Amino acid sequence: MKIIAYLDAGRIALGVVTSPTHFIAVADVAPDLPTDLIEILEREDGMDRLREATAGRTGDRLLADVTLKPFLHRPNAMWALALNFKSHIAETGLQTNPDFPHLFLRTEASYVGAGEPIFAPPYSVARAFDYEGELGVIIGKPGRDIPVERALEHVAGYTCLNEGSVREYQMHNRQFGLGKNFEASGSYGPWLMTPDEFGDPARHSVLTRINGVVRQRAPLDDMLIDVAHTVSYLSRGYRLRPGDLIAMGTPGALKPQPDDLEGQDLSRQFGPFPTPGLVHMRAGDVVEIEIDGLGVLRNSVITDPAFEGDL
Amino acid sequence: MKIIAYLDAGRIALGVVTSPTHFIAVADVAPDLPTDLIEILEREDGMDRLREATAGRTGDRLLADVTLKPFLHRPNAMWALALNFKSHIAETGLQTNPDFPHLFLRTEASYVGAGEPIFAPPYSVARAFDYEGELGVIIGKPGRDIPVERALEHVAGYTCLNEGSVREYQMHNRQFGLGKNFEASGSYGPWLMTPDEFGDPARHSVLTRINGVVRQRAPLDDMLIDVAHTVSYLSRGYRLRPGDLIAMGTPGALKPQPDDLEGQDLSRQFGPFPTPGLVHMRAGDVVEIEIDGLGVLRNSVITDPAFEGDL
Repeated sequence: MKIIAYLDAGRIALGVVTSPTHFIAVADVAPDLPTDLIEILEREDGMDRLREATAGRTGDRLLADVTLKPFLHRPNAMWALALNFKSHIAETGLQTNPDFPHLFLRTEASYVGAGEPIFAPPYSVARAFDYEGELGVIIGKPGRDIPVERALEHVAGYTCLNEGSVREYQMHNRQFGLGKNFEASGSYGPWLMTPDEFGDPARHSVLTRINGVVRQRAPLDDMLIDVAHTVSYLSRGYRLRPGDLIAMGTPGALKPQPDDLEGQDLSRQFGPFPTPGLVHMRAGDVVEIEIDGLGVLRNSVITDPAFEGDL
Repeated sequence: MKIIAYLDAGRIALGVVTSPTHFIAVADVAPDLPTDLIEILEREDGMDRLREATAGRTGDRLLADVTLKPFLHRPNAMWALALNFKSHIAETGLQTNPDFPHLFLRTEASYVGAGEPIFAPPYSVARAFDYEGELGVIIGKPGRDIPVERALEHVAGYTCLNEGSVREYQMHNRQFGLGKNFEASGSYGPWLMTPDEFGDPARHSVLTRINGVVRQRAPLDDMLIDVAHTVSYLSRGYRLRPGDLIAMGTPGALKPQPDDLEGQDLSRQFGPFPTPGLVHMRAGDVVEIEIDGLGVLRNSVITDPAFEGDL
């Protein structure tokens, strides 16, 4: 099942995608179900009811006709992992603890949905605004002190995620703080895909394209700490809640092709770790995060409208 | 104005405190106002309406009769500052950037209200569970790119805050992550006090008592980065929203008195920075954070019920 949230006459509605072009409006087939995905996840039979209501039906709505929105409204926690791909650890030269996930938090305000514009800070604020293509994990069943071998039972689904980061602010102090939480600096979507359809995350790969050029590509089994161990670790400290999001970390940059002048030009990089093949995101870019078998999260980049007029 | 949230027949209600013992139930005098403080803050005239509805009235409800609850429901961001008091920087020996607030995030699940129990992890999970007495700042008016000299106009009020921290987990990696986000590990309250009543934060002081013994005491003008500069900094990156909370950092430990054997016994400390006068929080303790002129936040400590049966 692929679940979307979209704008319907100014309100958020839920849909279930049935083909590359069509979806079912949940309100059409199950008007008694909540219009908030987290409320559905909070009901023990919520996802089963959604599945029953949509099974075997053909979608009569066009994906092309709607604006997708983030499908998680005010989750308790939007976790993210730093330095969780061996290729990214290598390119930064930074240390991380191999035994524990390296966790920090983002706020809801830092994410937009698929197709919505991502905000780049103007150059007067920061220049090193970077994509991070990642697997997003959404918690379904709540739980504390969950053993690793049962951790995946608590996962409601997966999504593509762009963990957009403002490097200058991230480097102001040891804690990433605001640098990982600029307004509308990241995105996730286009949908939540349930585990029965997605299968084992370790068998998939993630890929990032900027303006059509592949800039990251890595198998998801290159993670230092996998999904099950991360879920189990978090549950030692607190009760995982339906709708909690975990961004599983990003791989390193791909080496640029011989004819890729932009990717080879380190003089255009303003971050702390100039890396061949890395390019910053700028207004006008189109960013795509693709996870094979899941889908493509596509966003254009615009200058943060709060600073219109600034360069 | 001192605003509380409390349990009324199983639901959260708002009150305005009128004396050391009494308060007005907002629903009694302004039934048209939202029962969620953030919704009141989101209305441009919300706080004025609340003030008009309660001005000059005598509270007819007893504070002693109700259970206080956290007064912020699902704010976008619960920020906290690391290493923001010179005395705390000195005792840890850690570095921080003197030009920018050292920011990280906590989740709603990590806080309880005044009078509710704080959860200590059992020894099987962690031993260094520490209090951090702090000033909490609540945002009222939203805004982006706010100059320092206008920043305090965006503050709706202040509160006492205990930023309870699990040191072993905080030290797993550079990012504090789960160590600052254990379930019910911190608290804030007892109320939001509006700036007209509280005045300049720099003229107040914060004090922490464990079982009646003063363990922290510091003037709030010992902060490295003050409230106005922190609000202004955050607004460069994102739109501050009504209900956002900022925990302004904690001071160092007070030197123990000559007869304070517990405070002198470093062998009972399990954190990374054994410090005379520091004691960890344990089940059975009573923790009080007092800000002069504001009030006292009092919580008892119990073992996290998820681990009942563990030592």
